[in-house]
Amino acid sequence: MKTTKYILGAVCAAATLGTISSCKPKSADTAIGGDAAAKTYVAPGKYDEFYNFVSGGFSGQLSVYGIPSGRLLRVIPVFSMDPEKGWGFSEETKPMLNTSHGSVPWDDLHHVQLSKTNGENDGRWVFVNGNNTPRLARIDLKTFRTAEILELPNSGGNHSSPFITENTEYVVAGTRFSVPMDESDGDVPINTYKKNFKGTLSFVSVNQKDGNMDIAFQIETPGVNFDLSRAGKGPSHGWFFFSCYNTEQANTLLEVNASKNDKDFIMAVNWKKAEEYLKAGKGKKVKVRYAHNKYSEESHTSVSELKNEVIVLNSKELKDLCYFIPCPKSPHGIDVDPTGEYMVSSGKLAALIPVFSFSKMIKAIENKSFEGAYNGIPVIKYEAALYGEVQKPGLGPLHTEFDGRGNAITTMFVSSEIVKWNIKDLKVIDRQPTFYSPGHLMVPGGDSKKPDGKYVISYNKITKDRFLPTGPELAQSAQLFDISGDKMQLILDFPTIGEPHYAQAIRADKVKEQSLKTFKLEANKHPYVSKGEAQTKVVREGNKVHVYMTAIRSHLTPDNIEGVKLGDQVYFHLTNLEQDWDVPHGFAVKGANNGELLVMPGETQTLKWVPDRVGIFPIYCTDFCSALHQEMSGYVRVSGAASKVALVGNTGTNLPAE
Amino acid sequence: MKTTKYILGAVCAAATLGTISSCKPKSADTAIGGDAAAKTYVAPGKYDEFYNFVSGGFSGQLSVYGIPSGRLLRVIPVFSMDPEKGWGFSEETKPMLNTSHGSVPWDDLHHVQLSKTNGENDGRWVFVNGNNTPRLARIDLKTFRTAEILELPNSGGNHSSPFITENTEYVVAGTRFSVPMDESDGDVPINTYKKNFKGTLSFVSVNQKDGNMDIAFQIETPGVNFDLSRAGKGPSHGWFFFSCYNTEQANTLLEVNASKNDKDFIMAVNWKKAEEYLKAGKGKKVKVRYAHNKYSEESHTSVSELKNEVIVLNSKELKDLCYFIPCPKSPHGIDVDPTGEYMVSSGKLAALIPVFSFSKMIKAIENKSFEGAYNGIPVIKYEAALYGEVQKPGLGPLHTEFDGRGNAITTMFVSSEIVKWNIKDLKVIDRQPTFYSPGHLMVPGGDSKKPDGKYVISYNKITKDRFLPTGPELAQSAQLFDISGDKMQLILDFPTIGEPHYAQAIRADKVKEQSLKTFKLEANKHPYVSKGEAQTKVVREGNKVHVYMTAIRSHLTPDNIEGVKLGDQVYFHLTNLEQDWDVPHGFAVKGANNGELLVMPGETQTLKWVPDRVGIFPIYCTDFCSALHQEMSGYVRVSGAASKVALVGNTGTNLPAE
Repeated sequence: MKTTKYILGAVCAAATLGTISSCKPKSADTAIGGDAAAKTYVAPGKYDEFYNFVSGGFSGQLSVYGIPSGRLLRVIPVFSMDPEKGWGFSEETKPMLNTSHGSVPWDDLHHVQLSKTNGENDGRWVFVNGNNTPRLARIDLKTFRTAEILELPNSGGNHSSPFITENTEYVVAGTRFSVPMDESDGDVPINTYKKNFKGTLSFVSVNQKDGNMDIAFQIETPGVNFDLSRAGKGPSHGWFFFSCYNTEQANTLLEVNASKNDKDFIMAVNWKKAEEYLKAGKGKKVKVRYAHNKYSEESHTSVSELKNEVIVLNSKELKDLCYFIPCPKSPHGIDVDPTGEYMVSSGKLAALIPVFSFSKMIKAIENKSFEGAYNGIPVIKYEAALYGEVQKPGLGPLHTEFDGRGNAITTMFVSSEIVKWNIKDLKVIDRQPTFYSPGHLMVPGGDSKKPDGKYVISYNKITKDRFLPTGPELAQSAQLFDISGDKMQLILDFPTIGEPHYAQAIRADKVKEQSLKTFKLEANKHPYVSKGEAQTKVVREGNKVHVYMTAIRSHLTPDNIEGVKLGDQVYFHLTNLEQDWDVPHGFAVKGANNGELLVMPGETQTLKWVPDRVGIFPIYCTDFCSALHQEMSGYVRVSGAASKVALVGNTGTNLPAE
Repeated sequence: MKTTKYILGAVCAAATLGTISSCKPKSADTAIGGDAAAKTYVAPGKYDEFYNFVSGGFSGQLSVYGIPSGRLLRVIPVFSMDPEKGWGFSEETKPMLNTSHGSVPWDDLHHVQLSKTNGENDGRWVFVNGNNTPRLARIDLKTFRTAEILELPNSGGNHSSPFITENTEYVVAGTRFSVPMDESDGDVPINTYKKNFKGTLSFVSVNQKDGNMDIAFQIETPGVNFDLSRAGKGPSHGWFFFSCYNTEQANTLLEVNASKNDKDFIMAVNWKKAEEYLKAGKGKKVKVRYAHNKYSEESHTSVSELKNEVIVLNSKELKDLCYFIPCPKSPHGIDVDPTGEYMVSSGKLAALIPVFSFSKMIKAIENKSFEGAYNGIPVIKYEAALYGEVQKPGLGPLHTEFDGRGNAITTMFVSSEIVKWNIKDLKVIDRQPTFYSPGHLMVPGGDSKKPDGKYVISYNKITKDRFLPTGPELAQSAQLFDISGDKMQLILDFPTIGEPHYAQAIRADKVKEQSLKTFKLEANKHPYVSKGEAQTKVVREGNKVHVYMTAIRSHLTPDNIEGVKLGDQVYFHLTNLEQDWDVPHGFAVKGANNGELLVMPGETQTLKWVPDRVGIFPIYCTDFCSALHQEMSGYVRVSGAASKVALVGNTGTNLPAE
């Protein structure tokens, strides 16, 4: 697998693909125009044009950037504990991280999908995937908070996800690593992969009213690795496409053993057909275990429900459900153009981009233009589904987005560039170096029916010398290009949180007006809410002490608590009584083996604290809220286990005896 | 405590200070010049001028921004668990979060100090404070990692910290909330504050060779709240100044009860005198418990040591050690000018800025110009130490930095502005609105002997409508002003991580050349290192399974592991064999109740995993490292507790039997 010097834009020093993590582009900043500063500058007090939702990769979180400024507006905690926001620390959010394996405090978030209506981004929700412990999450764009997390059974990793259909009917999830099905005896030798390991594709329905997800059905497939996926749209609505690698079904040293076949596959799934089979009772109920976690904005609490059954359709037994299309060596991305007719794939180890035609594929199926079957599933002849190939686009094509003007733009991981080509004639129009290896790229709405083709952003894996160094660990980065003209113009580099995989962007006006400013205190249905200081109290239930507490500028009620004993578990239920915009209060206790609370106006949150010693423990507001914020503090007295000190809490009345 | 409309730059709507969280400046972006875009734009591939180290506040971490671009280069985990970097999750980093209360996964990081030599930033280390569970941390600027965390006993919160002396002789820490001393019976009524609660000032020595910290001594003080502090410099070297509020010694509703006295205090501490007392054996050894945690770059591991003694000097008994200077109502900042002669304070509830003179203070002490004593400590007459007052500077003065050209710049929290004034004549020169309430501000080197007076940054508490909204929780922000001319010119708003309190900045060339690129594999002294694939192995010790594992593009060794049993604890000791710049590898196991590993070239890290069920568990590299990264994966087989499957691990040899 030797690579020669690649002459279009980049020179690769390393000798084998496996060790190439970046090729240094020859020219540095040639494409940066003199007007770049003006194009990316968003003056103080002015707003960015787009919200850019960027996956955090191994951070497990979702970042929100403004475009074109590249400013980080917010990190939304999703799959990982976040001490800053109390996510996974407060009693209310702990259930959100529950799985069938117990609490899992981290995940690897790869892909982002804005909800769609008629194939266009609608600004209701963002869906994201957990790659390690297979999960899906939904973020509500009114609150910019994670509203739901759904675990996926029968899966060994959820990479080709959470891609959605054109009206958000389904969010999908395909197994990255095939594994024995959950109800089988999983204790099998790893080298029995071909016999015992299976893939699944999960179709998760979305309730259009509240966004709630449910596993509608799974499709059992041969054991391969599903990589990326995209729904059809327009004429291809009703179909879903998944890229597959490791069709060699290797179980070890995949670097070599999963790179042997000259062609792997795109799997085309007719999900309308799947719905028919489901209705006809062709699904099989199988025993599984998975967690389904929902957060309620009404009660400000979450619930984790453990479920134990899914319906599985068998791709081998049920005709016309799944087809394979051969695709050059180890495909990564599979992207459907705005018209829904073209499916652009890429063999990451091939030096061409295959473009498939949906209408040709349908004809091929009708004509049974098959070259055989793979594990019982028909394989369509490559030429029968192929529209054409983009020749010599660059090295290591990965992902493609669309500009809405008939062009596609593809990232080249190995030759470190983005390449623009025309969908009709498949000719390369422009190429620009990236710094360095680009993974995904993103045009706002670039996977929708109506791309907003003003910008493309390349999300790069390796930055080396692009920013001031920060020790051995460097930020990964995004590069913003203006694509409004014929040539793509690099205008900004900005570093990113975690590892940016996929991202999506939406015009700001589709989201900002609906953004919630405060929670209504009167509507707060938290079981431990205090809707005013008069409702605060300290209650003992065995060794549990419940402190019904309020925060308002600039005191906590109660702020002097006595009668807590060693061995107690103390629950501080803090309600933020404010109803003004942007007046959160925080809460912390000295020495707690826990995070903080960060409570928004009108909200209630709970911190559990188990005192470790007798003494006086300060408590205070951790979010600078007013001119008297430093005074917003108090004390808890902890006495010995046998103490007779009465349980009491108050503010302003516990004055010195003297 | 009524406030009237304030006419200089801002109008405050709220009627009482306690509820004021921001005043809307009258003019919006009047000060933004047409050249602002060019002044803040850092073209792709170009470097920022300054590293800006910004406290994360309630995130517990330290952010690194580039100035003037405002780009976030890195978040350094310090006091809080960070799933992204495995901080607090890996076996190597868990000890770093240990305290005498056990593991504390969060803190509230307020202030930042670059190490100094001859009163100038030298780029060796950054010190930061933990405000909630009193701690200090030191970050090494070769690696941009937390190298040391030191807990502080006899403290109820560490706010006035980690300010340092002009050659980094000491880092200090003063109690924010006074509490009973650790060796006393802490189980006392809260309203016995005046009798039982004490303050302490900790002087922590810094080893100039390796930066290691140690508590040299503590000074026991009357029970008050220490807020901020600064060391003297030049003529005032040998002294330290602390602002004190709650000299009323209130224990409840401090909003009212700690705002009664017309004047609170600045405490002046003669630490050279303290050293003399220490040498003379005047300190008292007292029993305490605190953790001292150190990370070794050599072994890539950390150790937490529990210590149990400190030496305490008594401020009441030891003459000439401490003095109080009266300061208008509830002072917040105390800042020493570049010459070391002027100490600028601010009563946050006063509408003036008092400037004290060090030479007058010394004279007042010599002349015993005292107005009496407070809890046994002499109180210098206000006028005897006062250089003068800045009249009508704005409302709610908090903090001051210096431009090195004879001017001071002060933040006004309530009137939402920064105000520039001349140190000699105390006249206001310029004022600019901020958006909105500014806490700290920062001039690069602005607390040193040689400020780099090109920029000032205001770190603001409330942003409301300044950025695209992100639900009820909004980012806090920084505002960058060009101060090279007569008028301060606002040129950039950028959002920040957590809550920005204090920050410091240093010219990039003082740090970037020494930044480490990789750890040397040959120098790796981790007890479980594998310095090549030949050294990998899987070893059982009772129910502990140690996997000596390596990562190199693009495979893990071993990648097929069998013989793990239910009830086992599996330790994956992963060594990254790469020696190239910017090629980290990550590592994760499906379903682990743990974070990931993110391992830099040449480093070893350990993930502990307790399997929860029988079956096949995928493992993979979580950091996109090469064109064949997706293939960098493997499987672990978990069998039943009574299984006889042999323990084995390999890569590429466990091929199918067929």
